[in-house]
Amino acid sequence: MIHSTPTGIPSGDAIPGRRSAPDLKALLGARAAQLEQAIDRLLPPVAGGEARLVEAMRYATLGGGKRLRGFLVIEVAALFDGPLEGAIRAGASVEMLHAYSLVHDDLPSMDDDDLRRGQPSTHRRFDEATAILAGDALQTEAFAILADPATHPDAQARIELVAALAGASGAAGMVGGQMIDMEGEGRALALPEVERLHALKTGRLIRYAAEAGAILGRAGGAQRAQLGAYGRDLGAAFQVADDVLDATESAEQLGKTAGKDAQAGKSTFVALLGIDGARAEAERLAARADQALSGFGPEADGLRALARYVVERRN
Amino acid sequence: MIHSTPTGIPSGDAIPGRRSAPDLKALLGARAAQLEQAIDRLLPPVAGGEARLVEAMRYATLGGGKRLRGFLVIEVAALFDGPLEGAIRAGASVEMLHAYSLVHDDLPSMDDDDLRRGQPSTHRRFDEATAILAGDALQTEAFAILADPATHPDAQARIELVAALAGASGAAGMVGGQMIDMEGEGRALALPEVERLHALKTGRLIRYAAEAGAILGRAGGAQRAQLGAYGRDLGAAFQVADDVLDATESAEQLGKTAGKDAQAGKSTFVALLGIDGARAEAERLAARADQALSGFGPEADGLRALARYVVERRN
Repeated sequence: MIHSTPTGIPSGDAIPGRRSAPDLKALLGARAAQLEQAIDRLLPPVAGGEARLVEAMRYATLGGGKRLRGFLVIEVAALFDGPLEGAIRAGASVEMLHAYSLVHDDLPSMDDDDLRRGQPSTHRRFDEATAILAGDALQTEAFAILADPATHPDAQARIELVAALAGASGAAGMVGGQMIDMEGEGRALALPEVERLHALKTGRLIRYAAEAGAILGRAGGAQRAQLGAYGRDLGAAFQVADDVLDATESAEQLGKTAGKDAQAGKSTFVALLGIDGARAEAERLAARADQALSGFGPEADGLRALARYVVERRN
Repeated sequence: MIHSTPTGIPSGDAIPGRRSAPDLKALLGARAAQLEQAIDRLLPPVAGGEARLVEAMRYATLGGGKRLRGFLVIEVAALFDGPLEGAIRAGASVEMLHAYSLVHDDLPSMDDDDLRRGQPSTHRRFDEATAILAGDALQTEAFAILADPATHPDAQARIELVAALAGASGAAGMVGGQMIDMEGEGRALALPEVERLHALKTGRLIRYAAEAGAILGRAGGAQRAQLGAYGRDLGAAFQVADDVLDATESAEQLGKTAGKDAQAGKSTFVALLGIDGARAEAERLAARADQALSGFGPEADGLRALARYVVERRN
C-alpha cells in the first residue's frame, strides 16, 4: 500500500531497519540479487526475428557484476524512505545504461576486448552487429524504464531522472569521456586530462546514480548537491582504484583482461602517480566522499561503507 | 510571449495562416531549414578531446535530408496551435534519433554502406569507433532535448514524449526491426514478415513523429489515435515507395547505393509484389493515411499533401 510520508513522497514498501550500520557485503549481494531479478523481469525473452536482440540484451546485463550504480540509486533513495520498487527500477535502468556502454566499449573498433566478467564479451558471444544493436536498445530501455509511472508517480520526478541520465551519459558525459579516451591512446596525457577523462567516462554515471536516488526521494537542493558531491568523489575514487587493480591483479582475479590500458598506450593514474601515489589518491577521494555525507546521520552508514569498499576491493 | 489558448496549451508564437492548403514543397523546405538551424544550435561544436565526437554528430545530422519526421512533428503540433519553438525542438530530437539509426545501420558489420545522401557515411568520413559513439550520443541527445522544459512547459507532456520515443525506437520498435532485417538477410520472408519488419524498423518512428505532435498539442485520446493511425499508414506507404525507388532509380538520383537491398538478399515489397503491385500498395496505404485524417478540416491539408508526396517522390 502506498501512503504519503513527511518527506512528501509515497513510501510504498520502504525498507524498515535500514538505518543502522549494515554489513556492506551482504547488503551489496542482496541489492544485486534484487536488481538481477528486476532486469530479468524488465527484459523478458521474446519470440520472432528480434529474439536474438533481446537474448543479447539479457546476456549483456544479467549474470552479475557489482551493480555499484544500481546499489547507489537504491541506498540513496532509502535515505528518504522512498518506495523500494521505484528505486530498484531506476537502479535497473542505470545498470542497463552501464551495460550498453560496456558492450560498445568492448567492440573490435573500440577497446577490442574479448572478455567481460570472465565470459566472452557480447560481440564474441553473438556477433558485432547484434552487439551494437543490443547496446543501442539497452540505452533506449534505460530511458523507457525511467519514463514509466511505476518508477515514480510524479511526472516531474521522472522527467528529472531522464534529464539527469541524458546529461550524464551523452556527449558531455560518458560517451564524451570514451571519445577522449580513444583520442588519448598512444600519447601522454597530463593528470588534469586523465582526471577529466574519467570524470566523464565513469564518474558522471556514478554521480548520476547518487543523484537519481535523491531525485526519487524528492530531496531538497542542498541535500541533492551533497549526494551529488558524494557520487562524484566516490566515482573518482573507484576509477583510481580500478587503475591500481588493473596494474596489480591478474586477469583471473579481475574477470577481464589485465594490464590492457597500459598495453593500449593509455595514460593511467598509476602511470602518472605510481602505485603508492595512486593508492593514496584513491584514499583521499574516498575520504572526501565520506566528508560529503557529514550532513547525514547513521542512515548513511551504508554509503560510507561503500566509499571504503571501492578503494579496498580486489576486483 | 506565451499565453493560453482554448486548446489548453500555451500558443507562444504559433504560426498564423497555416490553415490553408499549403505549397508542400515550399513548406517542407522551410521546415527543413528551421530544423537544420535548431540542430545546429542544439549541437554546438566543442573544444577538447571530445571535439571529434561532436563534429561527427553534426556531420551525421546536419546538411540535409527530407526531414520527414521533424516535419510531421511540427505540422501535427500546428493542428493544435502548439508553440512553434517546442515543436521544432521535438522535431530536431526525432531527426537526431533517426540520424543515429542511419549511422549505426551504415556500419561495416551492419549494412556496410559507404554513401549516405551522396556523401561518405559517418564511419567513412571519420572512423568506426567515432561513428558508433556519435550514434550513441545522438540517441542520448534526442532524449535530453525532450526532457528540457524548453520543449514543453508541462512535465507530463515531456515524459509522454520520452516514453513514446523510447517505445518506438527500442527493441520493440526501430532497433528490433533492424535486427529482424539482419536476421532475414539471405532467406525469403513472407509478406507479413516484411510488413512487420518495416512497421518496426521505419514505421514506428514515423508514427511516433505524428504522435509527438499530438502530445505537444495535448490532443485528446481519439485525436491522438487518429494521428497515430495516419503516421502508421504514412510510414508504411513511405517504406513501400522506398522499395520501388530502390529498384527503379539510379544511385545518383537517390544519393545512396541503389539496388542494395536486392543485392544483400533482403526480401523487398518489390520482390514480393512486383513493381506495379508495390506501387499500388503504396497508393492504397497513402489513401488510408488520408482517410485517417477525415476528422480534421483544411488545417490538415499539409498532412494530406504529405501522404501524396511520399508515394510520388523521386528520391
